[in-house]
Amino acid sequence: MPSNNGIIFKAIPDGYPVIGEHIELVTREIDIENFPLADGDILVKNQYLSLDPYMRGRMRNPQIKSYVKSYEIGKALEGHVPKSYFIGLLGMPGFTAYIGLNKIGKPKEGETIFISAASGAVGQVVGQIAKIKGLRVIGSAGSDSKIKYLDELNFDGAFNYKTRNIDEELTKLCPNGIDIYFDNVGGETLDIVLSHLNDNARVVACGMISRYNDNNPHVFKNLMYIVTKRILIQGFIVLDHYQEVDSFQKEMREWLKQDKIKYKEDIVEGIQNAPEAFLNLLTGKNFGKVIVKIC
Amino acid sequence: MPSNNGIIFKAIPDGYPVIGEHIELVTREIDIENFPLADGDILVKNQYLSLDPYMRGRMRNPQIKSYVKSYEIGKALEGHVPKSYFIGLLGMPGFTAYIGLNKIGKPKEGETIFISAASGAVGQVVGQIAKIKGLRVIGSAGSDSKIKYLDELNFDGAFNYKTRNIDEELTKLCPNGIDIYFDNVGGETLDIVLSHLNDNARVVACGMISRYNDNNPHVFKNLMYIVTKRILIQGFIVLDHYQEVDSFQKEMREWLKQDKIKYKEDIVEGIQNAPEAFLNLLTGKNFGKVIVKIC
Ligand SMILES: NC(=O)c1ccc[n+]([C@@H]2O[C@H](COP(=O)([O-])OP(=O)(O)OC[C@H]3O[C@@H](n4cnc5c(N)ncnc54)[C@H](OP(=O)(O)O)[C@@H]3O)[C@@H](O)[C@H]2O)c1
Ligand SMILES: NC(=O)c1ccc[n+]([C@@H]2O[C@H](COP(=O)([O-])OP(=O)(O)OC[C@H]3O[C@@H](n4cnc5c(N)ncnc54)[C@H](OP(=O)(O)O)[C@@H]3O)[C@@H](O)[C@H]2O)c1
Repeated sequence: MPSNNGIIFKAIPDGYPVIGEHIELVTREIDIENFPLADGDILVKNQYLSLDPYMRGRMRNPQIKSYVKSYEIGKALEGHVPKSYFIGLLGMPGFTAYIGLNKIGKPKEGETIFISAASGAVGQVVGQIAKIKGLRVIGSAGSDSKIKYLDELNFDGAFNYKTRNIDEELTKLCPNGIDIYFDNVGGETLDIVLSHLNDNARVVACGMISRYNDNNPHVFKNLMYIVTKRILIQGFIVLDHYQEVDSFQKEMREWLKQDKIKYKEDIVEGIQNAPEAFLNLLTGKNFGKVIVKIC
Repeated sequence: MPSNNGIIFKAIPDGYPVIGEHIELVTREIDIENFPLADGDILVKNQYLSLDPYMRGRMRNPQIKSYVKSYEIGKALEGHVPKSYFIGLLGMPGFTAYIGLNKIGKPKEGETIFISAASGAVGQVVGQIAKIKGLRVIGSAGSDSKIKYLDELNFDGAFNYKTRNIDEELTKLCPNGIDIYFDNVGGETLDIVLSHLNDNARVVACGMISRYNDNNPHVFKNLMYIVTKRILIQGFIVLDHYQEVDSFQKEMREWLKQDKIKYKEDIVEGIQNAPEAFLNLLTGKNFGKVIVKIC
């Protein structure tokens, strides 16, 4: 009988998940001949598995309600499973970039956008769409090779927030202030950005990955700017917008054809490496959209 | 020669302003006969003086830019100076309530609104407009007599946040969650409210008075709800909206005629009592719109 591997959710982590303690690879056998299929069911063989930060949010106490249900202890982690680009650029993360930027950011030619986690699955798409729309695009990321990639994407400026002073870099790279902040990280970066925003700026609250595994909240100093600068901060969940996925994919394919968009994937071979790849995603060791190639 | 009293700005306060150190009453003489008036100038005699929380924001280092210019050391504090209701219900605070609620809150019949500093110059108007529009209206304020007033205004629920547990009260009074939070105070209250908001809730960021004199920022624990509950937080400054003041005053006068709106004023006699009245406003000892009756 063929074997079937799954990453099992074992216990709710408090900080970063620990492999073996909170998540673990389990191999089981699957009897394909006698697999119980109801009428209309299909048994699929996965080729690619997507790892995304939101999966950390599902490793929670099931009593805490949120936009996706929590993982069940003892069951496999669920994820999205289509062909490579369909889990990245043309899939959920690319669509997240498109919806967040257009619906909340409302970009206008000549404006300045700043993007955190700018080389990631979502961030790299945000920056390239913003360039297409004629914005000045500044990004931050956590390694020099990521910054080099942002330069290749023709970002107008980029800096490594781990080795540079965020406040100083923003002062230098955004001399006319920031009109849109596409926030993937929350915490300290968000706080510093508030002081660089222009009047009527928009903050696209896409994610707060710096907080997912850290139980010591950041102490915000600049929230009063929300009032005095008439700032809009708005969260969104991409799942709410799937009625627009067709027009998104159409526009994105056009940009791809015209060579206006690149997409960096971080492909991990073998499901046995998925737990570590997930940890790498949560600690910034990934570079681009994390995809597990299963077969 | 008649004397002319003014409250002079003496030094930039760090926490609460201290009378004598940061602000002080100064009496000068004014030579009405020979007062230097340019063509078209009018010399006015003030009857009422408005004291408002934003005046604390003007007592800052002039190098910090904001929506109104900072006060100049050695000069008198400027304020708004028309007839009683024109500095309250029909003036700046009433208009603030109207604009913030309508433009950002976007109230819909049957929704639940929560208002902090609900008995104040702005808050009492927000609550009454929301009642007219068919919302469930809950408020918090800092004394039992203020809560009694909110009951008189037919609020659906109100609590004294100084003697009650905010989280427990909101659980009890907003069993279906909160759709609109009209935020006058920021800080801890805002943080707790985030956990009670419904999906797609709106936070009207009107002011953060709990922070104006306090240099120890609140440690926010619930900001991630902005993403997961698709929350909108938006700041505004009423000055930006004066093109709509006529339609506001028309609607408000109609409500007044129909006895749908009451307005509590906290009238202080004599400009010599203005510094203390301003301190009272910043510490919550006022009750309703603070107005100084000058003559
Ligand atoms: N709202 C939605 O519907 C929606 C949908 C998809 C994704 N998201 C959110 O969007 C954000 C980006 O997701 P993604 O899929 O594009 O992931 P990603 O950027 O490909 O990977 C996560 C990146 O976050 C950065 N990071 C990790 N830990 C961090 C920390 N402690 N502080 C600061 N940065 C840290 C790392 O980049 P650096 O090396 O540059 O730090 C890491 O590579 C996440 O917050 C995610 O939850 C939201
Ligand atoms: N965005 C704009 O354009 C605009 C325009 C006008 C006013 N505002 C803002 O709206 C808010 C209300 O202004 P208002 O004129 O209506 O003042 P108000 O409510 O009449 O007076 C201020 C009230 O704030 C409360 N307060 C004072 N210190 C506090 C603290 N440390 N923590 C919590 N609450 C505190 C007190 O009420 P309790 O006893 O109930 O605590 C006090 O009575 C202020 O934040 C102000 O800056 C904004």
